[in-house]
Amino acid sequence: MYIDSASKAQLQQWESELSAEFQGFKNQSLNLDLTRGKPSAEQLSLTDNMDGILSGNYKCQDGSDARNYGGLFGIPEMRKLGAELLGVKENEVIAGGNSSLTFMHLCFVFACLYGPGGKGTQWHRERIPRFLCPVPGYDRHFSICEDLDVKMINVPMTANGPDMDEVESLVKKDPSIKGMWCVPKYSNPTGIVYSDETVERIAKLGRIAGPDFRVFWDNAYAVHDLTDNPPKLANIMDLCKKHGTDNLVYQFSSTSKISFAGAGVSFLATSTANLAGFEKHLFVLTIGPDKVNQLRHAKLFPDLAAVRKHMRKHAELLRPKFEAVLDHLRKNFTDSDLGTWSEPQGGYFISFNARPGLASEVIRLAGEAGVKLTPAGSTFPYKKDPENRNIRLAPSFPKVAELNKTMAVFVNCVKLAAVRQQLGNP
Amino acid sequence: MYIDSASKAQLQQWESELSAEFQGFKNQSLNLDLTRGKPSAEQLSLTDNMDGILSGNYKCQDGSDARNYGGLFGIPEMRKLGAELLGVKENEVIAGGNSSLTFMHLCFVFACLYGPGGKGTQWHRERIPRFLCPVPGYDRHFSICEDLDVKMINVPMTANGPDMDEVESLVKKDPSIKGMWCVPKYSNPTGIVYSDETVERIAKLGRIAGPDFRVFWDNAYAVHDLTDNPPKLANIMDLCKKHGTDNLVYQFSSTSKISFAGAGVSFLATSTANLAGFEKHLFVLTIGPDKVNQLRHAKLFPDLAAVRKHMRKHAELLRPKFEAVLDHLRKNFTDSDLGTWSEPQGGYFISFNARPGLASEVIRLAGEAGVKLTPAGSTFPYKKDPENRNIRLAPSFPKVAELNKTMAVFVNCVKLAAVRQQLGNP
Repeated sequence: MYIDSASKAQLQQWESELSAEFQGFKNQSLNLDLTRGKPSAEQLSLTDNMDGILSGNYKCQDGSDARNYGGLFGIPEMRKLGAELLGVKENEVIAGGNSSLTFMHLCFVFACLYGPGGKGTQWHRERIPRFLCPVPGYDRHFSICEDLDVKMINVPMTANGPDMDEVESLVKKDPSIKGMWCVPKYSNPTGIVYSDETVERIAKLGRIAGPDFRVFWDNAYAVHDLTDNPPKLANIMDLCKKHGTDNLVYQFSSTSKISFAGAGVSFLATSTANLAGFEKHLFVLTIGPDKVNQLRHAKLFPDLAAVRKHMRKHAELLRPKFEAVLDHLRKNFTDSDLGTWSEPQGGYFISFNARPGLASEVIRLAGEAGVKLTPAGSTFPYKKDPENRNIRLAPSFPKVAELNKTMAVFVNCVKLAAVRQQLGNP
Repeated sequence: MYIDSASKAQLQQWESELSAEFQGFKNQSLNLDLTRGKPSAEQLSLTDNMDGILSGNYKCQDGSDARNYGGLFGIPEMRKLGAELLGVKENEVIAGGNSSLTFMHLCFVFACLYGPGGKGTQWHRERIPRFLCPVPGYDRHFSICEDLDVKMINVPMTANGPDMDEVESLVKKDPSIKGMWCVPKYSNPTGIVYSDETVERIAKLGRIAGPDFRVFWDNAYAVHDLTDNPPKLANIMDLCKKHGTDNLVYQFSSTSKISFAGAGVSFLATSTANLAGFEKHLFVLTIGPDKVNQLRHAKLFPDLAAVRKHMRKHAELLRPKFEAVLDHLRKNFTDSDLGTWSEPQGGYFISFNARPGLASEVIRLAGEAGVKLTPAGSTFPYKKDPENRNIRLAPSFPKVAELNKTMAVFVNCVKLAAVRQQLGNP
């Protein structure tokens, strides 16, 4: 279906057919949801043996009692796993509570109040600190900036990661830019993996940016591969060391989509100098993380190989779902000018770009037909998609049969919105 | 032993005897520790059945899946328990992660950045916001103030709680005072319980203070009674409602010293208006608490009666330890001018006041003899005990035999320091 070259008569015929189909969906009183970037019950059940896994033995490797206070940086077992996961040394990573988002927020708040490099580097000394946000991106990252009054600047995403020419030029000319968000592997929502060149250019940012500049490297999908030969992400910490920018990056990850979503273990990896600064303020707000839950995870995942083995089971459950969504997109839009989309090899999302100006209308129509889609603009700072075209699809939670129903509605709404727009009747 | 009325010859004789005894302790190469306000292994074992308690059933009362994301305010079961524990309605309390200290810190940070009553009430609009700190108090409270550049003002503790004449007079005359720390039951470290009159006068502070004033009510020891007929704390929320000061108080508690220290569930209780403001910012930093751990706790503690029953087992383990410490104090110092102490009916601490000027010397001597005591000044803002006399004793962790050894050294050091001071040879 090519809208741009269609005659008015053809458009009118399509409009009539698509409207009838749309009405048919409405009559079914559907109640479907494609917004939820969370694991399905089947995935969660892969870890059900977490409960009882300690068999009453609460002793950690180092002899400490996981049940009692202490250990601000987490138990050694989990720091070791975090080091493997993020490609750093054990003393460059700490294991925390159930949320890597909380680690991100803390790094951000501490940077605002105390400075990522200590006195004199506080972001909130600037009237309006700025932050680079590759778009489309993750709404939770943007919320942190917004909540802390840090102005966001959009940077376009390419197939290799953020547009680094743009990033370098902005960082060079504007010292009020204090950092950048990155989801380097299976980027949320585009699913791309940063190229080796992009990672190295990011590592080199520390040479042109000030000492208060930090890259927030949210490696949420480090082991969330859907394929057997997944792409490899370059090691940012190694590259920073190579270029003498050791303090540039805060890396984040968690087991939230490995074990239980919201009941996992989070990781923060960065230079030992950054960790020492972080510790001073972390100490003020907690006696330490939940070490019992960390120990449970250590039993289940003694090393990264165990995690990878476990993640293959997740992949088996997720692959058919991603395939279902992609099938609908390929069948309907490959030979069309109606939209483009990502075909990720991992992660949790498929990113769809409708024709410019149509995302909100597609989402409105789908809602009318009983299909909940992520609100338009969610993948952009301030919820403003300048082209109003990006829609984030989350295939993980529904069953395949539901996804098929949902995608039939989605496809209809994308077409209907496009045809009506072209007819000047959106 | 009365120092003030002793002759020089008497003092010299004591000095010689006590020094010999002290040398005897030193020769034993002791390694004892009275600093740790944490439960013993025996206490923690009371909850060992936590592991495996779910029997693979992760469903909450409301049908939600504890393993997945969602539920920012915690699971209904735990909110209900928190409501019972803190004497509020279920919609006035939220259940969080493993640390009530983190809730306190968040309330504090949000108040600094966003204002406890929203726009126009931000504490950090003031050049130097101030905070009332009843002394002696809890060092972790003071650290939060210090880390956020909030100036602390000492207020004396009486047998009934903070000196309310002083508190009211300060709040009336100084609008830069933004709040007050309180540990209302078994106060850390004095062990006293706020009288009904004190609680009511605190509830009425909202009528003389500005809309940006908040009481941080850390009810850490709400059910940590050592006796069978424990004192009852008046219900602060009821009294606030009575006086129309509903938004005045943030209440905190946790199961840290009920189940596992550092692997429990925390609670924040306050008005629904305050909670709504809190939610806006809490949402930015987490998808929600560890609901699986909350569900474990709900199974173990279906209601407050179950908690109380469990706490009686803690009391059985703690009572002999408190008695051991108190025995040494009573036998040696009742008939003396060497010191005074608290005899708490619950909580985790005994507060000892040596003769003025001697706390640091007692602690130094004890350290020399192999007994670690909480550093002098720890119970005061900026670690400055103006009289240098308060020492916090924590009987919970060591075994009774160790406590007896430890207290023999402690008693010796208190006496020796006093005698030497009097001899002009500290």
